[in-house]
Amino acid sequence: MFKKILIIGCGLIGSSVLRASINKKLSKKIFVFERNKKYRNQIKKINKNIILINKLDKIIQEMNFVIIATPMSEYKKIIPKLNIFLKHDTLITDVGSTRSNVAKLIKMKLSKKLNWIMSHPISGSEVSGPKHGNKNLFKNKWCIIIKDKNKNKLKKVINFWKKIGSKVILMNPKEHDEVFSVTSHLPHLIAYNLIKTAQDFQKKDKKNIIQFSAGGLRDFSRIAASNEIMWRDIFFNNDNIIKAINLFTKNLNSFKKIIKNKNNKKLLSRLSNSKKVRTQILQLKHDVAKPDFGRE
Amino acid sequence: MFKKILIIGCGLIGSSVLRASINKKLSKKIFVFERNKKYRNQIKKINKNIILINKLDKIIQEMNFVIIATPMSEYKKIIPKLNIFLKHDTLITDVGSTRSNVAKLIKMKLSKKLNWIMSHPISGSEVSGPKHGNKNLFKNKWCIIIKDKNKNKLKKVINFWKKIGSKVILMNPKEHDEVFSVTSHLPHLIAYNLIKTAQDFQKKDKKNIIQFSAGGLRDFSRIAASNEIMWRDIFFNNDNIIKAINLFTKNLNSFKKIIKNKNNKKLLSRLSNSKKVRTQILQLKHDVAKPDFGRE
Repeated sequence: MFKKILIIGCGLIGSSVLRASINKKLSKKIFVFERNKKYRNQIKKINKNIILINKLDKIIQEMNFVIIATPMSEYKKIIPKLNIFLKHDTLITDVGSTRSNVAKLIKMKLSKKLNWIMSHPISGSEVSGPKHGNKNLFKNKWCIIIKDKNKNKLKKVINFWKKIGSKVILMNPKEHDEVFSVTSHLPHLIAYNLIKTAQDFQKKDKKNIIQFSAGGLRDFSRIAASNEIMWRDIFFNNDNIIKAINLFTKNLNSFKKIIKNKNNKKLLSRLSNSKKVRTQILQLKHDVAKPDFGRE
Repeated sequence: MFKKILIIGCGLIGSSVLRASINKKLSKKIFVFERNKKYRNQIKKINKNIILINKLDKIIQEMNFVIIATPMSEYKKIIPKLNIFLKHDTLITDVGSTRSNVAKLIKMKLSKKLNWIMSHPISGSEVSGPKHGNKNLFKNKWCIIIKDKNKNKLKKVINFWKKIGSKVILMNPKEHDEVFSVTSHLPHLIAYNLIKTAQDFQKKDKKNIIQFSAGGLRDFSRIAASNEIMWRDIFFNNDNIIKAINLFTKNLNSFKKIIKNKNNKKLLSRLSNSKKVRTQILQLKHDVAKPDFGRE
């Protein structure tokens, strides 16, 4: 499909794109830019034909498709190199988790001759690094692709994600950031704060309470173990998160009032209503109905 | 071990106690009190020797060990029957999730001749009813047993839980309610509120955003699908929950401030700190290190 692909940044997501591209034979040659020594050693083991580079220079001018999978805070350093070395017909995408900020950055900093069409594959895990990458990471998962006037290039990006298994949907940056502030960013932020609350309590009480973690705390701890650089970049770059926190706080306060007043009817109606989302998620096959008694 | 066991209330937990007791041959005869017709039919299928009763009357005076596994709000109706019909040497326990309220109820309402030693097995699932019960539900899970002056009876309760696989630890009611307000009750309460926030957003935005749920929302939806009667009883009966909510809200507000001020150092330190709890939980074998890319 592409003669030469370059993956910039090869952690969990980058190496999964790498593995999936090799698996689906989407390129004759795959170049990987990664500076982390430990990561480089892990990448070498994936496939002996991978061309590892540690400089973004003349070599990248031959590329047909560039996928940026670094933390978003690295983009500022990468864009000047792309401006200097890429040919005008190179197609660029990235996999960042917030889109309005990157749309702005592209508009301000990327050379007008270049085409960057943003993607956001909705997949990941609590672990980081290329050794955890997985060629099936994107299989049957959504990949949000940001609308673009260049229909020809847009189609190429869509086809790429479809070929590695994604279900594709188009959004504009604003829409994307609103939706994911609620379905992904807020849950992570809440998980981090819940874990901190348990830690604070433990410190105050001088008791090892974490050992009594039931299913609830266990799952939150998994979510709160996600990569901190990636999540810093998300929390700093999605303005909708503040709105989401405020909406959540409003609900939490009214819940607290319901408990304090022992308002039976209101509490039962709230608790029952939540089950509807579970039903939806099972229908969407985002989880299995089989009860979870703890992972073994 | 016991000649006759009676299980009062036979949902997920009661039927798991039932299955485990049959499996470990802990009683010659097991009686089950359950009024729900659907549940009764499911219980009959577990084992043909189970004696199903639908009235707490003279028949229960022969019991040696009574395990109450109804929602805690039922206890007020059950205690008068125990007072009338049980012999003074019958041992009573229950599996409720808050303990100070039940300690108070026992003190006020239970006949002084009877012995009720409280238990709380830390196990459960998002599903309810006897068909989901599991003889291994308690295996290697904590069971908190509330301290009691009657060491002889206490030993019997401890042995019972150990025989069906639990790890046992003694606490007093206050200690128990403090610990579980943070490790179990707060996470559930937060999950319910997060799901409600997603529902509110969906309603407001008239968009089906739930379909884009990533791992975070998925796991929260599981927790928020737990039995509403059980959780109403917990939320209404653990005073420490309000304290836990306040501690959480304080953390959430300072997190919001960190984001607003783009305080890089503070945010990274918070996010990295959370990983320590994950490490603890993995060391405790409450979860597996294998990355979670979604349940299949």
